[in-house]
Amino acid sequence: MNFLEERIAKDGIVKSENVLIVDSFLNHQMDIALLEQIGQEFHNRFRDCPITKVLTIETSGIPVAYPVAKAFGVPLVIAKRTPSQKIDEDVYMAELDPSIYPSKDTVIVAKKLLSANDHVLIIDDLLANGGAVQCLISLVESADATVEGLGIALEKGFQEGGHRIRNLGYRLESLAIVDTLDPVSGSITFR
Amino acid sequence: MNFLEERIAKDGIVKSENVLIVDSFLNHQMDIALLEQIGQEFHNRFRDCPITKVLTIETSGIPVAYPVAKAFGVPLVIAKRTPSQKIDEDVYMAELDPSIYPSKDTVIVAKKLLSANDHVLIIDDLLANGGAVQCLISLVESADATVEGLGIALEKGFQEGGHRIRNLGYRLESLAIVDTLDPVSGSITFR
Repeated sequence: MNFLEERIAKDGIVKSENVLIVDSFLNHQMDIALLEQIGQEFHNRFRDCPITKVLTIETSGIPVAYPVAKAFGVPLVIAKRTPSQKIDEDVYMAELDPSIYPSKDTVIVAKKLLSANDHVLIIDDLLANGGAVQCLISLVESADATVEGLGIALEKGFQEGGHRIRNLGYRLESLAIVDTLDPVSGSITFR
Repeated sequence: MNFLEERIAKDGIVKSENVLIVDSFLNHQMDIALLEQIGQEFHNRFRDCPITKVLTIETSGIPVAYPVAKAFGVPLVIAKRTPSQKIDEDVYMAELDPSIYPSKDTVIVAKKLLSANDHVLIIDDLLANGGAVQCLISLVESADATVEGLGIALEKGFQEGGHRIRNLGYRLESLAIVDTLDPVSGSITFR
């Protein structure tokens, strides 16, 4: 097990076959030393790429993306979720799948923050069905910028997002991929 | 002018007498080197306090609070905004003023993340009317924890939040206090 798998095994709480609670160290409360280690690990994995910006989506992607942007020495851009009726003209936008995100939010980035010269590393804390990450890919490509890769802290391997993104040909690196959760024993199986 | 005032004067965009856009370096896109400097500055100002946790509110407080928590070597706790009907029992909660925040969100923190032994530094990017910050104070005091102080990157001195919080007796440190915005000349007056 790597450092993140070890921490998830130690402090993650298995609520059901689908639900793993990591709110004491990865979201809600953040262990900054762990996040710094995550930032270094993504920098190691993508150091061959000419990254110019790190892109994440509010909210819980931010503390994972911060140390990555710092390690690369590039700006951190945060895509915002906003009700569709509030959109102004100077943004790229992508729609979250309403069957999964019932709030019908639109994900936006100001056009001035992404250009065709950008090489973007997309970072998020969790990958499940992949809807948020697909919006981020769409925003980057709307700007004719390049998606260099995607870095995820915790992937739920039993949901389809990771499979779908890799099948589209993107380089996706997940630090921990959970394949099964056993709510009876509390055990977690990593890929 | 200090480093943050200089940056706001250089890259902030005055949209009206009330609206200052800082989305190219402080929210939406983050200049990580600037945020690291903000983190160090808050550490310098509050280093006499026995801080055990840094508390902020999603979303744009997070990248300001991250380097502060790192500088103190303590966890970062992120209060969440959630529709009132979705609240479970194990949280402290505070209501945003519905006259200012029409979404009627409730601000919550899991009870397990704040205790009476905690000495909390509250951090946010912006202070205007003070509603969000007052919710954070309320959450800390619901846990019988101690509010050691509040650190704000950019205070709108022409709105009532800063005055109100200081009048309540809290130690509030704002790195930049804007007193007037002139949309004709684009100039910004700092206190």
